Amino acid sequence: MRRALELARLAETAGEVPIGAVVTLDGRIIGEGENRNRRDNDPTAHAEIVALRSAALHLGDFRLAGCDIWVTLEPCPMCAGAISHARIARLYYGAADPKGGAIEQGPRLYAQPQCLHRPDVYGGIAEKEASALLRGFFAARR
Amino acid sequence: MRRALELARLAETAGEVPIGAVVTLDGRIIGEGENRNRRDNDPTAHAEIVALRSAALHLGDFRLAGCDIWVTLEPCPMCAGAISHARIARLYYGAADPKGGAIEQGPRLYAQPQCLHRPDVYGGIAEKEASALLRGFFAARR
Repeated sequence: MRRALELARLAETAGEVPIGAVVTLDGRIIGEGENRNRRDNDPTAHAEIVALRSAALHLGDFRLAGCDIWVTLEPCPMCAGAISHARIARLYYGAADPKGGAIEQGPRLYAQPQCLHRPDVYGGIAEKEASALLRGFFAARR
Repeated sequence: MRRALELARLAETAGEVPIGAVVTLDGRIIGEGENRNRRDNDPTAHAEIVALRSAALHLGDFRLAGCDIWVTLEPCPMCAGAISHARIARLYYGAADPKGGAIEQGPRLYAQPQCLHRPDVYGGIAEKEASALLRGFFAARR
């Protein structure tokens, strides 16, 4: 999660919403990313999507069975869906997101009977640091 | 939708699940895609994601305000979320997807109070052709 927080800070420096993510396999980082919507002109370029795509390219497989993802914020529906498609084993996240989260709020995607693959979920990891980063970013823009 | 169905057939020829999508602005196609998960080793490479990314690159903007998306199958949570992030104005889709759809089934993402942007939704467009393609694909694999 330390690396995910570093990536979130990199995103902030680039004028993006400060969220970072890493994908690990057996404790080693095999993919990482931070929000790049504005830089890449890409509506899908959330930290999780960037990290999942880079890990899948690294492994040469569109399924990341046995891999874990670490994200500084609770994933949105798009990212929660992508994590499920990628067959990620464990999801660790920092701050909960009452406005946009899809894990413990709103659609609660992994609680839907329709959901084909549910990772184990661990929230609240380095929560204070992750939410302080986001609060600072949005306060500066108001 | 004719072009989206052509793209779905291209996906099938390449051994991918036959789903296609196009993004239009004022009736002109500005982005398109078909499922490429296997070819690209990308868990996020559903037709809609590929089409949204290509349209956003084309416009040089991560928001596709005023654009429409045409997909042969009801979008999953990942794609429904991406369509919302991209601020797509209208979603037209072919077959409903009781197993994986997120519009009129399961999480019904656009009916969630949390949802920030809801496109207008028109389902059942060229539904028979779209579902016949998918049925044929899965029957051949059983």
